[in-house]
Amino acid sequence: MSTVAMEAASVGAHLRPIGVIRSALKVRGEAPRQGSEGAPDAWVEVHPWAAEALRGIVAGDEIILITWLHEARRDVLQVHPRSDTSNPLTGVFATRSPDRPNPLGLHPVFVRAIEGDRLRVGPLEAIDGTPVVDIKPVLK
Amino acid sequence: MSTVAMEAASVGAHLRPIGVIRSALKVRGEAPRQGSEGAPDAWVEVHPWAAEALRGIVAGDEIILITWLHEARRDVLQVHPRSDTSNPLTGVFATRSPDRPNPLGLHPVFVRAIEGDRLRVGPLEAIDGTPVVDIKPVLK
Repeated sequence: MSTVAMEAASVGAHLRPIGVIRSALKVRGEAPRQGSEGAPDAWVEVHPWAAEALRGIVAGDEIILITWLHEARRDVLQVHPRSDTSNPLTGVFATRSPDRPNPLGLHPVFVRAIEGDRLRVGPLEAIDGTPVVDIKPVLK
Repeated sequence: MSTVAMEAASVGAHLRPIGVIRSALKVRGEAPRQGSEGAPDAWVEVHPWAAEALRGIVAGDEIILITWLHEARRDVLQVHPRSDTSNPLTGVFATRSPDRPNPLGLHPVFVRAIEGDRLRVGPLEAIDGTPVVDIKPVLK
Protein backbone atom coordinates (compact mmCIF):
# COMPACT_ATOMS: atom_id res chain seq x y z
CA MET A 1 0.00 0.00 0.00
CA SER A 2 1.41 3.43 -0.82
CA THR A 3 1.98 5.97 1.93
CA VAL A 4 -0.81 8.09 0.52
CA ALA A 5 -3.24 5.16 0.55
CA MET A 6 -2.19 4.26 4.10
CA GLU A 7 -2.91 7.76 5.32
CA ALA A 8 -6.26 7.72 3.56
CA ALA A 9 -7.13 4.44 5.30
CA SER A 10 -6.48 5.98 8.71
CA VAL A 11 -8.66 9.04 8.10
CA GLY A 12 -11.71 8.92 10.31
CA ALA A 13 -10.35 6.16 12.52
CA HIS A 14 -10.97 8.25 15.59
CA LEU A 15 -12.91 6.49 18.32
CA ARG A 16 -15.84 8.21 19.95
CA PRO A 17 -16.56 6.64 23.37
CA ILE A 18 -20.12 5.28 23.59
CA GLY A 19 -19.94 4.91 27.35
CA VAL A 20 -17.70 4.52 30.37
CA ILE A 21 -16.90 1.84 32.97
CA ARG A 22 -17.92 2.50 36.57
CA SER A 23 -16.07 0.05 38.80
CA ALA A 24 -14.74 -0.40 42.31
CA LEU A 25 -11.35 -1.01 40.64
CA LYS A 26 -9.79 2.43 40.68
CA VAL A 27 -6.17 1.90 39.68
CA ARG A 28 -4.49 -0.28 37.09
CA GLY A 29 -2.17 -1.94 39.64
CA GLU A 30 -5.05 -3.53 41.55
CA ALA A 31 -6.90 -4.87 38.49
CA PRO A 32 -6.80 -8.61 37.70
CA ARG A 33 -5.26 -9.40 34.33
CA GLN A 34 -8.40 -11.08 33.02
CA GLY A 35 -12.04 -10.96 34.06
CA SER A 36 -11.91 -14.64 34.96
CA GLU A 37 -9.19 -13.98 37.54
CA GLY A 38 -11.39 -12.71 40.33
CA ALA A 39 -12.64 -9.47 38.76
CA PRO A 40 -15.76 -7.81 40.18
CA ASP A 41 -18.97 -6.83 38.47
CA ALA A 42 -19.14 -3.26 37.21
CA TRP A 43 -21.43 -0.79 35.43
CA VAL A 44 -21.30 0.29 31.82
CA GLU A 45 -22.82 3.77 31.65
CA VAL A 46 -23.86 4.27 28.04
CA HIS A 47 -23.95 7.88 26.88
CA PRO A 48 -27.49 9.10 26.11
CA TRP A 49 -26.82 9.63 22.38
CA ALA A 50 -25.88 5.93 21.98
CA ALA A 51 -28.47 4.36 24.29
CA GLU A 52 -30.90 3.29 21.56
CA ALA A 53 -28.17 0.99 20.20
CA LEU A 54 -28.70 -1.21 23.31
CA ARG A 55 -32.16 -2.31 22.17
CA GLY A 56 -32.36 -6.09 22.21
CA ILE A 57 -29.76 -6.72 24.91
CA VAL A 58 -31.29 -8.53 27.89
CA ALA A 59 -30.08 -9.76 31.26
CA GLY A 60 -28.32 -13.09 30.89
CA ASP A 61 -26.75 -12.22 27.51
CA GLU A 62 -23.04 -12.75 27.01
CA ILE A 63 -21.54 -9.73 25.28
CA ILE A 64 -18.11 -8.44 24.33
CA LEU A 65 -17.17 -4.98 25.52
CA ILE A 66 -14.47 -3.21 23.55
CA THR A 67 -12.71 -0.59 25.62
CA TRP A 68 -10.00 1.97 25.03
CA LEU A 69 -7.31 1.26 27.64
CA HIS A 70 -6.60 4.93 28.14
CA GLU A 71 -3.71 4.43 30.59
CA ALA A 72 -1.78 2.05 28.34
CA ARG A 73 1.46 2.81 26.52
CA ARG A 74 1.31 2.80 22.72
CA ASP A 75 5.05 2.55 22.06
CA VAL A 76 5.48 -1.00 23.37
CA LEU A 77 5.89 -3.78 20.78
CA GLN A 78 7.33 -6.61 22.89
CA VAL A 79 6.82 -7.61 26.53
CA HIS A 80 7.66 -10.32 29.03
CA PRO A 81 4.20 -11.95 29.44
CA ARG A 82 2.58 -11.27 32.81
CA SER A 83 5.51 -8.91 33.59
CA ASP A 84 7.61 -11.97 34.52
CA THR A 85 11.13 -11.57 33.12
CA SER A 86 11.56 -15.35 33.14
CA ASN A 87 8.97 -15.43 30.33
CA PRO A 88 10.66 -14.83 26.94
CA LEU A 89 10.25 -11.47 25.24
CA THR A 90 7.09 -11.80 23.16
CA GLY A 91 5.37 -9.59 20.58
CA VAL A 92 2.35 -7.80 22.05
CA PHE A 93 0.15 -9.26 19.27
CA ALA A 94 0.85 -12.71 20.80
CA THR A 95 -0.17 -11.47 24.28
CA ARG A 96 -3.03 -9.69 26.03
CA SER A 97 -0.74 -6.88 27.20
CA PRO A 98 -2.70 -3.61 27.54
CA ASP A 99 0.40 -1.84 26.24
CA ARG A 100 0.22 -2.08 22.41
CA PRO A 101 -0.03 0.25 19.40
CA ASN A 102 -3.83 0.53 19.63
CA PRO A 103 -4.73 -0.28 23.24
CA LEU A 104 -8.13 -1.85 22.69
CA GLY A 105 -9.48 -4.11 25.43
CA LEU A 106 -11.73 -7.10 24.67
CA HIS A 107 -13.88 -8.17 27.58
CA PRO A 108 -16.37 -11.03 27.35
CA VAL A 109 -18.88 -10.41 30.16
CA PHE A 110 -22.36 -11.43 31.21
CA VAL A 111 -25.15 -8.90 31.45
CA ARG A 112 -26.41 -9.14 35.04
CA ALA A 113 -29.06 -6.40 34.81
CA ILE A 114 -30.14 -3.40 32.77
CA GLU A 115 -31.24 -0.13 34.40
CA GLY A 116 -32.09 2.55 31.86
CA ASP A 117 -28.89 3.39 29.98
CA ARG A 118 -26.71 1.38 32.39
CA LEU A 119 -25.70 -2.27 32.09
CA ARG A 120 -24.53 -4.24 35.11
CA VAL A 121 -21.87 -6.62 33.74
CA GLY A 122 -19.20 -8.97 34.95
CA PRO A 123 -16.73 -10.20 35.68
CA LEU A 124 -14.75 -7.22 34.40
CA GLU A 125 -11.11 -6.34 35.01
CA ALA A 126 -11.25 -2.86 33.40
CA ILE A 127 -10.76 0.05 35.79
CA ASP A 128 -13.15 2.85 36.67
CA GLY A 129 -13.26 5.56 34.00
CA THR A 130 -12.22 3.31 31.11
CA PRO A 131 -13.96 4.47 27.91
CA VAL A 132 -16.16 1.89 26.16
CA VAL A 133 -16.07 2.12 22.37
CA ASP A 134 -18.22 -0.83 21.25
CA ILE A 135 -20.49 -3.63 22.45
CA LYS A 136 -21.05 -6.82 20.44
CA PRO A 137 -22.99 -10.02 21.05
CA VAL A 138 -21.06 -13.26 21.45
CA LEU A 139 -21.81 -15.34 18.36
CA LYS A 140 -23.47 -18.62 19.26
CA MET B 1 -18.11 12.08 34.41
CA SER B 2 -17.84 15.79 33.67
CA THR B 3 -17.77 17.01 30.09
CA VAL B 4 -14.15 18.01 30.58
CA ALA B 5 -13.23 14.56 31.88
CA MET B 6 -15.10 12.89 29.00
CA GLU B 7 -13.19 14.92 26.47
CA ALA B 8 -9.94 14.09 28.21
CA ALA B 9 -10.79 10.39 28.01
CA SER B 10 -11.23 10.56 24.26
CA VAL B 11 -7.96 12.37 23.64
CA GLY B 12 -5.54 10.09 21.85
CA ALA B 13 -8.19 7.56 20.85
CA HIS B 14 -7.04 7.72 17.28
CA LEU B 15 -6.30 4.36 15.70
CA ARG B 16 -3.07 3.85 13.79
CA PRO B 17 -3.41 0.86 11.41
CA ILE B 18 -0.80 -1.82 12.13
CA GLY B 19 -1.49 -3.58 8.85
CA VAL B 20 -3.96 -4.20 6.06
CA ILE B 21 -6.05 -7.11 4.73
CA ARG B 22 -5.21 -8.48 1.29
CA SER B 23 -8.12 -10.61 0.10
CA ALA B 24 -9.86 -11.84 -3.04
CA LEU B 25 -13.00 -10.23 -1.58
CA LYS B 26 -12.96 -6.80 -3.19
CA VAL B 27 -16.36 -5.28 -2.40
CA ARG B 28 -18.54 -5.29 0.67
CA GLY B 29 -21.56 -6.70 -1.15
CA GLU B 30 -19.84 -9.98 -1.96
CA ALA B 31 -18.45 -10.60 1.54
CA PRO B 32 -20.04 -13.25 3.79
CA ARG B 33 -21.44 -11.83 7.02
CA GLN B 34 -19.20 -13.99 9.20
CA GLY B 35 -15.95 -15.84 8.56
CA SER B 36 -17.70 -19.15 9.24
CA GLU B 37 -20.14 -18.53 6.36
CA GLY B 38 -17.85 -19.58 3.53
CA ALA B 39 -15.21 -16.86 3.71
CA PRO B 40 -11.84 -17.41 2.05
CA ASP B 41 -8.35 -17.25 3.51
CA ALA B 42 -6.57 -13.92 3.18
CA TRP B 43 -3.32 -12.15 4.01
CA VAL B 44 -2.63 -9.74 6.81
CA GLU B 45 0.23 -7.50 5.69
CA VAL B 46 1.72 -6.04 8.85
CA HIS B 47 3.42 -2.69 8.43
CA PRO B 48 7.20 -2.84 8.98
CA TRP B 49 7.19 -0.60 12.08
CA ALA B 50 4.83 -3.05 13.86
CA ALA B 51 6.28 -6.35 12.67
CA GLU B 52 8.28 -7.12 15.81
CA ALA B 53 5.00 -7.27 17.72
CA LEU B 54 4.25 -10.55 15.85
CA ARG B 55 7.02 -12.43 17.68
CA GLY B 56 5.59 -15.59 19.25
CA ILE B 57 2.73 -16.11 16.80
CA VAL B 58 3.06 -19.44 14.97
CA ALA B 59 1.13 -21.31 12.29
CA GLY B 60 -1.84 -23.10 13.84
CA ASP B 61 -2.56 -20.37 16.40
CA GLU B 62 -6.08 -19.02 16.72
CA ILE B 63 -5.99 -15.24 16.90
CA ILE B 64 -8.45 -12.37 16.90
CA LEU B 65 -7.97 -9.66 14.30
CA ILE B 66 -9.48 -6.29 15.11
CA THR B 67 -10.16 -4.28 11.98
CA TRP B 68 -11.48 -0.83 11.21
CA LEU B 69 -14.44 -1.35 8.88
CA HIS B 70 -13.61 1.70 6.84
CA GLU B 71 -16.65 1.51 4.56
CA ALA B 72 -19.18 1.31 7.39
CA ARG B 73 -21.60 4.05 8.42
CA ARG B 74 -21.10 5.54 11.87
CA ASP B 75 -24.52 7.18 12.24
CA VAL B 76 -26.53 3.94 12.44
CA LEU B 77 -27.82 2.95 15.91
CA GLN B 78 -30.51 0.39 15.00
CA VAL B 79 -30.83 -2.14 12.18
CA HIS B 80 -32.96 -5.00 10.97
CA PRO B 81 -30.57 -7.95 11.59
CA ARG B 82 -29.14 -9.44 8.40
CA SER B 83 -30.87 -6.64 6.44
CA ASP B 84 -34.14 -8.61 6.68
CA THR B 85 -37.02 -6.24 7.45
CA SER B 86 -39.00 -9.13 8.95
CA ASN B 87 -36.42 -9.11 11.76
CA PRO B 88 -37.37 -6.54 14.43
CA LEU B 89 -35.42 -3.29 14.62
CA THR B 90 -32.49 -4.02 16.94
CA GLY B 91 -29.78 -1.90 18.52
CA VAL B 92 -26.45 -2.31 16.75
CA PHE B 93 -24.80 -3.28 20.07
CA ALA B 94 -27.01 -6.40 20.04
CA THR B 95 -25.91 -7.26 16.48
CA ARG B 96 -22.76 -7.74 14.43
CA SER B 97 -23.75 -5.00 11.99
CA PRO B 98 -20.64 -3.32 10.52
CA ASP B 99 -22.57 -0.04 10.68
CA ARG B 100 -22.14 1.25 14.27
CA PRO B 101 -20.66 4.27 16.07
CA ASN B 102 -17.13 2.81 16.11
CA PRO B 103 -17.00 0.28 13.25
CA LEU B 104 -14.54 -2.18 14.72
CA GLY B 105 -14.54 -5.71 13.30
CA LEU B 106 -13.69 -8.75 15.43
CA HIS B 107 -12.48 -11.72 13.42
CA PRO B 108 -11.41 -14.98 15.05
CA VAL B 109 -9.15 -16.69 12.50
CA PHE B 110 -6.55 -19.40 12.31
CA VAL B 111 -2.97 -18.64 11.30
CA ARG B 112 -2.27 -20.83 8.28
CA ALA B 113 1.28 -19.64 7.61
CA ILE B 114 3.72 -16.83 8.34
CA GLU B 115 5.92 -15.31 5.63
CA GLY B 116 8.06 -12.46 6.92
CA ASP B 117 5.71 -9.64 7.96
CA ARG B 118 2.67 -11.36 6.39
CA LEU B 119 0.24 -13.76 8.06
CA ARG B 120 -1.93 -16.10 6.02
CA VAL B 121 -5.20 -16.36 7.98
CA GLY B 122 -8.72 -17.62 7.59
CA PRO B 123 -11.53 -17.90 7.20
CA LEU B 124 -11.93 -14.12 6.96
CA GLU B 125 -14.92 -12.11 5.70
CA ALA B 126 -13.17 -8.71 5.72
CA ILE B 127 -12.62 -7.13 2.31
CA ASP B 128 -9.35 -6.22 0.59
CA GLY B 129 -7.87 -2.99 1.91
CA THR B 130 -9.48 -3.19 5.36
CA PRO B 131 -7.12 -1.66 7.94
CA VAL B 132 -6.05 -3.95 10.81
CA VAL B 133 -5.67 -2.17 14.14
CA ASP B 134 -4.86 -4.99 16.59
CA ILE B 135 -4.12 -8.71 16.85
CA LYS B 136 -4.74 -10.69 20.04
CA PRO B 137 -4.41 -14.35 20.99
CA VAL B 138 -7.55 -16.31 21.78
CA LEU B 139 -7.46 -17.02 25.50
CA LYS B 140 -7.46 -20.74 26.20
